[in-house]
Amino acid sequence: MTIADRWLLPDGMDEVLPPQASRMEELRRALLDLYHCWGYDHVMPPPLEFLDSLLTGTGTDLDLQTFKLTDQLTGRMMGASADVTPQVARMDAHSLKRQGPVRLCYCTTVLRAKADQHQGGRSPMQVGVELFGHAGLEADLEIVYLALASLEAAGAGEIHLALGHIGIYRSLVEAAALNVEQEATLFAALALKSPGELAAQVAASVPDPALAKMFLALGGLHGGAEVLSRARDVFAGAPASMQAALDQLDALHQGVLARFDVALYFDLAELRGYQYHTGMMFAAYVPGYGQALAKGGRYDDTGRAFGRARPATGFSMDLKLLATLVPGTPETGAIWAPAESDDALRAMIVALRQQGERVIQALPGQRTGPAEHHCDRRLEFIDGRWQTATLTQETRA
Amino acid sequence: MTIADRWLLPDGMDEVLPPQASRMEELRRALLDLYHCWGYDHVMPPPLEFLDSLLTGTGTDLDLQTFKLTDQLTGRMMGASADVTPQVARMDAHSLKRQGPVRLCYCTTVLRAKADQHQGGRSPMQVGVELFGHAGLEADLEIVYLALASLEAAGAGEIHLALGHIGIYRSLVEAAALNVEQEATLFAALALKSPGELAAQVAASVPDPALAKMFLALGGLHGGAEVLSRARDVFAGAPASMQAALDQLDALHQGVLARFDVALYFDLAELRGYQYHTGMMFAAYVPGYGQALAKGGRYDDTGRAFGRARPATGFSMDLKLLATLVPGTPETGAIWAPAESDDALRAMIVALRQQGERVIQALPGQRTGPAEHHCDRRLEFIDGRWQTATLTQETRA
Repeated sequence: MTIADRWLLPDGMDEVLPPQASRMEELRRALLDLYHCWGYDHVMPPPLEFLDSLLTGTGTDLDLQTFKLTDQLTGRMMGASADVTPQVARMDAHSLKRQGPVRLCYCTTVLRAKADQHQGGRSPMQVGVELFGHAGLEADLEIVYLALASLEAAGAGEIHLALGHIGIYRSLVEAAALNVEQEATLFAALALKSPGELAAQVAASVPDPALAKMFLALGGLHGGAEVLSRARDVFAGAPASMQAALDQLDALHQGVLARFDVALYFDLAELRGYQYHTGMMFAAYVPGYGQALAKGGRYDDTGRAFGRARPATGFSMDLKLLATLVPGTPETGAIWAPAESDDALRAMIVALRQQGERVIQALPGQRTGPAEHHCDRRLEFIDGRWQTATLTQETRA
Repeated sequence: MTIADRWLLPDGMDEVLPPQASRMEELRRALLDLYHCWGYDHVMPPPLEFLDSLLTGTGTDLDLQTFKLTDQLTGRMMGASADVTPQVARMDAHSLKRQGPVRLCYCTTVLRAKADQHQGGRSPMQVGVELFGHAGLEADLEIVYLALASLEAAGAGEIHLALGHIGIYRSLVEAAALNVEQEATLFAALALKSPGELAAQVAASVPDPALAKMFLALGGLHGGAEVLSRARDVFAGAPASMQAALDQLDALHQGVLARFDVALYFDLAELRGYQYHTGMMFAAYVPGYGQALAKGGRYDDTGRAFGRARPATGFSMDLKLLATLVPGTPETGAIWAPAESDDALRAMIVALRQQGERVIQALPGQRTGPAEHHCDRRLEFIDGRWQTATLTQETRA
């Protein structure tokens, strides 16, 4: 193996260098402080869990994304967390067992076996919040607000918010009494966004003409706010669960516009996380980024596998990606101190650091100077005492 | 699989719940801020690397501790980072390639395949600093100072600092011209701390009586500051490298006592990280803890495998363990807000949160109250406007 090979990193397993790592840390703090102010408690899920508990109720997508390895202590299979949300649902259902609404937040690196084309790296730093124990729209709205506030805190200017609701497709599937195979074929046709394929599958599986018409219309129900009124017409004869889903989207629409200046987009055929989501779903986009910067939605009852079904809603983001909205810049506020071993100098350095100043002390024989270390001031012995002097272009070099 | 099984976590893979997670976050920030003030730049190493680069030059101990898995994209073996230090050495040697001293710090979760009896969990959060590019004692002293300052920041009262130097044993091994097998047997005897075993191995491998006497004495050279003067006598005829090592320990001793009130302990036969360390080594202990809370030392030339040999010294700690010095306590400074949807209330909540206040708004129908959510105040509509009122034992319930 050559030296050149040794420093290759696996695809999507990135290191973060200065100044970007400081930018990420700054944003991490801003987001966790924001969640704290909204009443969210910080939790840290384990990086590895037994596969059985890690993948309970999460569907096959996550299974394929999960790195698996054998626990040498027990011989059981473990998985590296690829998504923190089900872990936090387990913590709410089993570890905390609190009554009433529980608000939790986290910020931790997860691992993905395969790089999803829409998700970038294989080691995202997942940051997000989950609200358990409340089934109402107020909880969903709080989550959408926090997602938008997070993007604003990260420096996003123009935000596009896409809203959907899994109950729309689900109520049609229930009304049509589709079997598992029919549902899977229809699902695939909708996901393909191919009108021809959709028409063929609807003709084959949905004999009821009214329902068939609704399925066909669903494929075209995406766009601005007018989509909701079109949906009211198209789904006028649909079951009550459909009307409830549309009512929720209406309320989310109004609620978001009352507090945020974002471009709203509806996609009623959005089926992301179908095995997992149970209500409204959203994704927030920023121009210049091919993938959503924040994704979330309602996912009730994930905790059932852990003995306690609970309403749940939340969202998450990749802090690594989010921190690129405003890239880090090298620090320039440091003070350079000479290498001398002098009690007065030492006391001065201690005092400056206690005030929060960054003081970089030269090491004996060091050839690099304040410029290489991004210092804008230096400690100098003037008039019998150590003082900070501003560095100019000339004195810095 | 029963519900009870699903929430078992693998041994040593712990979750961190409130309030301990907040305590860890608070300490994380205090430590990273401390390192920032000393001029250390934040870096984030990748959680997985190809095994070849991860384990280059680090020895077999780390190999046994490393979780291994196959990269599905390349078919190559990857390892989960079990120790951040060699990764940061790679970043310094290859990614940064800066001239002069480079100061780096990090805080990240690492994974260990086996629970070391002295190291606690298998998912420690490793926090530490590394100083590259300076071979002098000033760099080592800075590292020891930062380790002690870190423990003080974490709330440690009484600190015991154990100092050693790998050059002491190494200079004897070189003088005795031991072959690999002899060295391994002597090493094992010293590590066992068994005088009988040591005597037998020295008799078998070291014919020179003066050197044999020094090897035998080495096993007993541990204790307070008097160990250094005893060592001066015992090793009077030893090579210059031995004298240099003792001089460094002397200087560290004086340097530490000049700035910190700690109990100093010397163990000249300490051989921890023998394949890895190249100079002084230290470990800091706090009463009540069976393992060291901070460990570090000099490890020059680790970067050689990456094309650039550099002097290096540093230390690291487990933030999970460190945060237990002062356990977290539930927050009590929050404001409870009713569930009402009222513009004036909403504006008040926004304003309070912008001031950094924690405001927990009730959700419609919520049965738990301010007491369950650790609130000490609540928003009330009094005299025609929303005001914060202090909660008493009675009003809180």
